[in-house]
Amino acid sequence: MISYREIGKIRTPYKRKAPYQPSGEKGEFFLEIFPEYKKGLRGVESFKYIYVVFHMDQVKDYKLDAEPPWIEDVNVGVFASRSPKRPNPIGISVVKLLRVEESRIYTSSIDAINGTPLLDIKPYVKYLDSKEDANLGWAEKTEDRSHLLLHLRGIPHDY
Amino acid sequence: MISYREIGKIRTPYKRKAPYQPSGEKGEFFLEIFPEYKKGLRGVESFKYIYVVFHMDQVKDYKLDAEPPWIEDVNVGVFASRSPKRPNPIGISVVKLLRVEESRIYTSSIDAINGTPLLDIKPYVKYLDSKEDANLGWAEKTEDRSHLLLHLRGIPHDY
Repeated sequence: MISYREIGKIRTPYKRKAPYQPSGEKGEFFLEIFPEYKKGLRGVESFKYIYVVFHMDQVKDYKLDAEPPWIEDVNVGVFASRSPKRPNPIGISVVKLLRVEESRIYTSSIDAINGTPLLDIKPYVKYLDSKEDANLGWAEKTEDRSHLLLHLRGIPHDY
Repeated sequence: MISYREIGKIRTPYKRKAPYQPSGEKGEFFLEIFPEYKKGLRGVESFKYIYVVFHMDQVKDYKLDAEPPWIEDVNVGVFASRSPKRPNPIGISVVKLLRVEESRIYTSSIDAINGTPLLDIKPYVKYLDSKEDANLGWAEKTEDRSHLLLHLRGIPHDY
């Protein structure tokens, strides 16, 4: 087994359920770093985007078949999906860094429940991480692509 | 403490030291998934890029101050750098998916030592993960930016 430590907590407005990959959500989102790691934040404010790496501690089991709840008849493996029910429930989100205040990093919305244990923060670096020719994989083929995009972008909608 | 399991191994030509964020390196790079997780790969081949999440098991300590070896007089915190010496030695690389053969995913080069434990594979999804307005953070200010880019892109050079 591989062991990691909690380096802080994610603070979000989500008490029990987090929307799938939200964006433009209301409320405050910040990473609260424990005091002993605060020194490691120096210079992080110079980045526009960061990776937030977290432990999805509410996830108790995993499924190798992922059935995205928003598409019917799609059955892909968990490693072809962003389902939280993974063998190792590690969450990774790319978020916009808004500002750093003491041991808090304020960010754009994160799809994590309030109090989620934080594992790591990494700078999102233009030439390493931004791939303009990336695709949507199996989801490219779905008929209702505009609907899919609402889900991917976490935009609330009624249908 | 948070515990994770190894789901496979990363195979690279690097025996003892991996270049920093290589690209265009020669040799074979693949992810070898353990048989019990193979089913989770279904559909992954439809993505151009994937995230490889791994445990840097050779890293035995961490430093909150990161001193990038390729720039003098830069002292930034570990969370503003991609240094492997992190409180939790989790590595994340975006790689090109070349092909899937049985329980192997062949990829572009990965900055990991041969045999590195694999923790997770996630699809890299265009609208979620590709940020065209991302920056280089503190590294934007370095005088020799073209030199920096050789390092970031892992291109071998003599100076």
